[in-house]
Amino acid sequence: MSKKQPIVVSESIMMQSKIFTIQSQEITFSNGASVTYERLVSSTEGAVLIVPLLEDGTLLLIREYGAGVGRYELGFPKGKIDAGENWEQAALRESQEEIGFLPKKVKRLDSLSLAAGYMTHYTHIVLATELTPQVAIGDEPEPLEIVPWHLDDWKALLNELHFSEGRAYAALMLVLKETGRI
Amino acid sequence: MSKKQPIVVSESIMMQSKIFTIQSQEITFSNGASVTYERLVSSTEGAVLIVPLLEDGTLLLIREYGAGVGRYELGFPKGKIDAGENWEQAALRESQEEIGFLPKKVKRLDSLSLAAGYMTHYTHIVLATELTPQVAIGDEPEPLEIVPWHLDDWKALLNELHFSEGRAYAALMLVLKETGRI
Repeated sequence: MSKKQPIVVSESIMMQSKIFTIQSQEITFSNGASVTYERLVSSTEGAVLIVPLLEDGTLLLIREYGAGVGRYELGFPKGKIDAGENWEQAALRESQEEIGFLPKKVKRLDSLSLAAGYMTHYTHIVLATELTPQVAIGDEPEPLEIVPWHLDDWKALLNELHFSEGRAYAALMLVLKETGRI
Repeated sequence: MSKKQPIVVSESIMMQSKIFTIQSQEITFSNGASVTYERLVSSTEGAVLIVPLLEDGTLLLIREYGAGVGRYELGFPKGKIDAGENWEQAALRESQEEIGFLPKKVKRLDSLSLAAGYMTHYTHIVLATELTPQVAIGDEPEPLEIVPWHLDDWKALLNELHFSEGRAYAALMLVLKETGRI
């Protein structure tokens, strides 16, 4: 709480690929301890995770191949914030690309870290409502399957083996809270 | 849902540092589209996130420097599952190292992916109860601050700016559900 912020003594880029940048940081703590950390550095803008919600309480989920987990994953539409975009513009674009709807209203519910210990990455959780059909072409290798799911059935969603991302659980929790369900 | 699993045509390690391994995968989808993905490969065992819960409903959180976000972060004790350990052994070890308590009971509530699109990483969410004081020495550069927080005050915890990990929200949600609070 009142602990003094550690000092970053030095930092350098160790490795860089198309989508990943790994940085090394030498940190000195207020007790004198010195540690070298490795961390993944993302673009400062981060990503958006969109919760598309119809008026009757139905969520529009997508089923998409997740190369990380190596299988189709059920989840919320999301994507990186492109250079020059803000979270709002990214949310509007991704909604059209991934579910074929343009939301009239978007509201940022929270901004979440992914792994505070070793990733700089942030995901903005965006509630999208008043949806009207409008398609934009994204960079998906195949059309995404849209899976409607009613918010009241959220416990069944937690039990879905292929709905597994921690930040997807978090988004669900935030929307349940926002809509007065919990 | 009934989509055919894409085929991994080839894969190779692109880069490796002390804690990160980046792999390249060429994937062919059932529609013939071919894509090269980069993904972060973790140890197959993954990590544990421990929710230490006292009998009166108090959570034991920790405040720890997060090199990823570059500040002190409020969250649950957690750590990598070491080689030769299972999630249960890792949970017992990390509980002693990070909060100085040995749980008599541990229960796996769920296993969560971090970023299904580009990380293989899984975190097991473990509820730890019947805690008795027992300290083990970990590899922390400074003593961790323990922050008691009552489960009934979960909405205030979501509002804490430095309680920001998606998987921490998920763990909180799972424990609220497990204890019948939501």
